[in-house]
Amino acid sequence: MKLRLLKVDFVDEAVDKCLDYIKKHWKLETVEVELAEALGKIISQDIVSLVNVPDFNRSTVDGYGVIANDTYGATEGIPSILTLLETVEMGSRAHSNLRPGECAYVPTGGMIPQGCDAMVMIEYTEIIGEGEVAIYSPVSYRENITRIGEDVKEGEVVLKRGTCLGAKEIGVLAAIGCTMVEIYAPITISIFSTGDEIIEPGESCKTGQIRDINGYGISAMAKALGMKIQRHKIIKDNQDMLKSALEEARMDSNIVLLSGGSSQGTKDYSEKSIHSMGEPGVFTHGLAIKPGKPTILGAADGVWYVGLPGHPVSAMIVFDVVVGSVIRNIRNETPKPSLYAKMKTNIASAPGKETYVLAKLSEENGHWTAEPIHGKSGLITSLSQADGYIVVDKNCEGVRKDEIVKIRQFR
Amino acid sequence: MKLRLLKVDFVDEAVDKCLDYIKKHWKLETVEVELAEALGKIISQDIVSLVNVPDFNRSTVDGYGVIANDTYGATEGIPSILTLLETVEMGSRAHSNLRPGECAYVPTGGMIPQGCDAMVMIEYTEIIGEGEVAIYSPVSYRENITRIGEDVKEGEVVLKRGTCLGAKEIGVLAAIGCTMVEIYAPITISIFSTGDEIIEPGESCKTGQIRDINGYGISAMAKALGMKIQRHKIIKDNQDMLKSALEEARMDSNIVLLSGGSSQGTKDYSEKSIHSMGEPGVFTHGLAIKPGKPTILGAADGVWYVGLPGHPVSAMIVFDVVVGSVIRNIRNETPKPSLYAKMKTNIASAPGKETYVLAKLSEENGHWTAEPIHGKSGLITSLSQADGYIVVDKNCEGVRKDEIVKIRQFR
Repeated sequence: MKLRLLKVDFVDEAVDKCLDYIKKHWKLETVEVELAEALGKIISQDIVSLVNVPDFNRSTVDGYGVIANDTYGATEGIPSILTLLETVEMGSRAHSNLRPGECAYVPTGGMIPQGCDAMVMIEYTEIIGEGEVAIYSPVSYRENITRIGEDVKEGEVVLKRGTCLGAKEIGVLAAIGCTMVEIYAPITISIFSTGDEIIEPGESCKTGQIRDINGYGISAMAKALGMKIQRHKIIKDNQDMLKSALEEARMDSNIVLLSGGSSQGTKDYSEKSIHSMGEPGVFTHGLAIKPGKPTILGAADGVWYVGLPGHPVSAMIVFDVVVGSVIRNIRNETPKPSLYAKMKTNIASAPGKETYVLAKLSEENGHWTAEPIHGKSGLITSLSQADGYIVVDKNCEGVRKDEIVKIRQFR
Repeated sequence: MKLRLLKVDFVDEAVDKCLDYIKKHWKLETVEVELAEALGKIISQDIVSLVNVPDFNRSTVDGYGVIANDTYGATEGIPSILTLLETVEMGSRAHSNLRPGECAYVPTGGMIPQGCDAMVMIEYTEIIGEGEVAIYSPVSYRENITRIGEDVKEGEVVLKRGTCLGAKEIGVLAAIGCTMVEIYAPITISIFSTGDEIIEPGESCKTGQIRDINGYGISAMAKALGMKIQRHKIIKDNQDMLKSALEEARMDSNIVLLSGGSSQGTKDYSEKSIHSMGEPGVFTHGLAIKPGKPTILGAADGVWYVGLPGHPVSAMIVFDVVVGSVIRNIRNETPKPSLYAKMKTNIASAPGKETYVLAKLSEENGHWTAEPIHGKSGLITSLSQADGYIVVDKNCEGVRKDEIVKIRQFR
């Protein structure tokens, strides 16, 4: 078994390999949910309107529905005098059919009667007697009217596959009468933290041990991506235990994720265990990024195996740039817009690999500034201070003070 | 009953009035949840670490723990030769107590033995015989060691009240062994859409009627703020029905929200009904904003009453700037950072009121540009295209092309 290749992948190469496999071997499940339960879900197909919006010619003002021609040349001095046929009620059908010289009262949002082709705002009118209205200002054809289908035409796509349903999208769906929505079913994941030193956060910590940060942090990131966590467990540095954990997990998980201890031994166990799951096995033996190099990616029998570095910051960043990118890609999600910020200091980086730097933002007259958080400030401190991270391109030797950078935020 | 005052409030005045009332009359409930269930929740108190992180002196590299003085002047030519006392295992206690001339192997993350005050990376060492290690490079005092409490000291605040728990915050809590978290209990809200023309999105739409967009859109925004929706219903333009709906809702809701039909009549009903609930009744009779002027705010018996305009875009914006601001303020939440963007066109606005304009973003070499979405493009189209909205200050006459604006995003 040839496991140790020296070549590491760039992130985009690794993501492409994963996508290649997943697009061939996964069939994304979908599920229908009620609109009221759909907040934050990702739609799995384009949503086509089955109706026209509006589905009647609708007034955009309170006033009188007229035939535009009848108002031609109307002024305060020489108004057009029209006969009032009807007062249209909100939510009710308009009954009249206007002929020249006639008008109807229509409230904002009310239905425009037959024959009527413009609305005069009430401010420019006056009731001058029993059933007679003076129009003091001309309107042009179709003024103040939203026509049938002007907003959305029957058959039009209102939301694209991959849209995340926020409040405004839910409003859009309510407007077209879409009460059940097809969304992506949760992708299933099992998460294992490996290492003899790792204990449950609730256990009392003996000297030399550390609490399982990744099991919780990565589970939260997976949930934020809409995944279902099948299990998250700690596995000791033991090849057999690790292997049987993978065997169990692959039965009910689309993704099996290991986050390794920091030692090389643990990485070896993970790599061997994943590779023994079947073809193609491990296809990425490391990433050309800093931090996050000891990342392993592989697959077998339709299950995607991800071995993350043990260091929590590296694990979260690699999860975002690899797992997040793959999942967003296969679901056709539009990435949320990133912030731009001006660097407060230089960042040095080695060309040939992407460098990821946690950053803290502050607002300065009309823009954001970003300050790198240095490792020395400590793990918890870095995580709790970070607003996001900066990616320094593999072809750069760093970022200079005052350069504009993009900030990726953890979801 | 004096209801109709001409004066409308600026948004910040209105928010202050609401905050004044709510801070006096609400006691925010809290609830304890397990860490694994806490994603997206808001913590209700500062979280203080009960432990030191790390709680032992820890190595940041694979290598040999030494006494720094022993390595003084070490070179490849003249190494320091040290006696190996121990190989520290991951997750286990170190047993030795170094004296001058001695060293111990410690892996990354492993415990530093007594007496040891620096780590030499394995790259700069060599095992030269039975129990002897050559050190080829000097280290300084405390080099490559994270000391007890260096990251977090026992008693230190790691997260502030009002923090929204994302993946990295959940990682922080796991790291300090905090497995139960006190979060704000959901604020309860009842949402009523009023108007004779409003029907359920699932009903077949007769001419002149429109589907209930606000009931769904505002419910989604309320959920995104962590609220519990007690009910969302449609109420016809009928004073008695409206009043009895409010009577029912105030029994189990912190907030009772009406979104009005577009007609003045509906606004009157809402205003009268809210005012009849008790003291102080309606305290804001309109907002100096566009769109969103017909907003009513009031309170009685500890219940906050909010009357939103009927137009969905106005309703959502007012919900965000009034209800969202108030809730974020009382929970001490840090607002998520807004994007800055360069205007693609001018926006005209009337001074004396804030103007809110939906905008669409696009990315252009290193910055965002924003383009206003004009009302004429239709309601659904505007909503589905909008990435957020721009606030034009009440003292401005608009925004010029190329000016930098802040984009507020709907959550």
